[in-house]
Amino acid sequence: MSGLGIIAGGGELPIAIAECAQDSGKRVFVVGLKGIADPTISRFAHVWVPLGQAGTMARVFRQNGCNEVLLAGKVSRPKWSDISFDAKALTKLPKVMAAATKGDDALLRSFVDIIEGEGFRAVGVAEAAPGLLAPAGALGKLNPSAAQMADIELAAKAVNALGALDIGQAAIVCDGLVLAVEAAEGTDGTIARIAELPEHLRGTAGKPRGVLYKGRKPIQDGKTDLPVIGSETVRKAASVSLAGIAVEAGGALIVGRQKVAEAADRAGLFLYGYSAPAPMSR
Amino acid sequence: MSGLGIIAGGGELPIAIAECAQDSGKRVFVVGLKGIADPTISRFAHVWVPLGQAGTMARVFRQNGCNEVLLAGKVSRPKWSDISFDAKALTKLPKVMAAATKGDDALLRSFVDIIEGEGFRAVGVAEAAPGLLAPAGALGKLNPSAAQMADIELAAKAVNALGALDIGQAAIVCDGLVLAVEAAEGTDGTIARIAELPEHLRGTAGKPRGVLYKGRKPIQDGKTDLPVIGSETVRKAASVSLAGIAVEAGGALIVGRQKVAEAADRAGLFLYGYSAPAPMSR
Repeated sequence: MSGLGIIAGGGELPIAIAECAQDSGKRVFVVGLKGIADPTISRFAHVWVPLGQAGTMARVFRQNGCNEVLLAGKVSRPKWSDISFDAKALTKLPKVMAAATKGDDALLRSFVDIIEGEGFRAVGVAEAAPGLLAPAGALGKLNPSAAQMADIELAAKAVNALGALDIGQAAIVCDGLVLAVEAAEGTDGTIARIAELPEHLRGTAGKPRGVLYKGRKPIQDGKTDLPVIGSETVRKAASVSLAGIAVEAGGALIVGRQKVAEAADRAGLFLYGYSAPAPMSR
Repeated sequence: MSGLGIIAGGGELPIAIAECAQDSGKRVFVVGLKGIADPTISRFAHVWVPLGQAGTMARVFRQNGCNEVLLAGKVSRPKWSDISFDAKALTKLPKVMAAATKGDDALLRSFVDIIEGEGFRAVGVAEAAPGLLAPAGALGKLNPSAAQMADIELAAKAVNALGALDIGQAAIVCDGLVLAVEAAEGTDGTIARIAELPEHLRGTAGKPRGVLYKGRKPIQDGKTDLPVIGSETVRKAASVSLAGIAVEAGGALIVGRQKVAEAADRAGLFLYGYSAPAPMSR
């Protein structure tokens, strides 16, 4: 039986992947990144390893029969001087640091290369836990209106344009106007600043308007950080009176889809899996 | 002698244009948008007219011998219900409102169309006040390093990608990472949120890093709002410890170039007119 090794960054995603893979009959072993991964990874067979100890990670995955390795969860761009590197990591470091100057996705891809150089097969979430991928269409009770669909389309175009430059995965559009696009501040920061815009440009309490869209960067190969939403995303979107959330169908991940859809229904937001028209699809 | 009519929105730009045009021997008449334009437009022949009174504007320009009209200065996207429209404006309103759903530049272009429909020639700043256009090269004492030039290039690419979708005119890049891209929050908001990013991603007091770039949207024809910087931009960039500011040479405007360059020198920032390599130039 093949074993799946998960290098767990922050947030719920690594846990959701481990659960999903285990449910499908896979043996799972988790390397929790010290100080970064959620303590609840301890529900699975695991060890804690500091970021930078690549040799240790490779060793424990081998000892635990993992032939496939996946990296998941939030790892914000590290401060190099805070990391203690082992010998294995040090030999790869120049390559990683060079990649780091080219954007987050390049940085993550360099980790994938290292994993593969160690004889593991790097797998993406779509393969390890396909149940987390957003399906197409309305995922809750509400559907986007035609105008909201147009906003989703524009947001998807913005994310594609940004993502081609490895910038961000999220955009917020309201009535044809792009209110915010994500860069280094992350999706939470992008959502939060909607509240600072003039009221007539955005939704207000009792009068929700605008849509958050999350989708892959065109340069992503599915082995690195896919866009993710969860219940917290719904809560934040509702707090700035957005009308709904759309994600790239087959490209973005939803952690706890049933709960997220219920949260969207309760908050009065639509939740939609968007498939770009043919010329934009990959 | 031809007369130049200026519809003045907020900020120093309309005043700088009026000065520059007057210095070059043009007769200037200013329509100050009520509640929006800076009171110092009163230094020029002027009247105050509320936004939405297009008929009045056309009449006063005609009465004052203006054959050319230019729109300049900040006019944030209006709340329609706050505007009182005259008959002339009302006949054009459906077109303007349709344009408004397509982004700021489309909105401004619809005003230009109206001006031209009234028999005036719509002129751009580049024609009316060429002295305000940023020249190429170092504009202060400091020069960007090779790494900073690479950051400027990436920021210019981001602005081009965003601008093609009528999103924003500014991006901030530090060591190959795009820290922030501008949408509805404007350049000031884009600069301000750099301070909220983790310190190792950005400059800090005494250790400036990162560059702000402003450039035209590829869809702009020069008759609508060109990107602008001034002394205030330098102050804000310095307050978040950026290392420098670059603007599109021949495409962005600098209000008070000498003063801005001196402010940059004092703050230890480079100020650079960037010309994109051939495939990106227009």
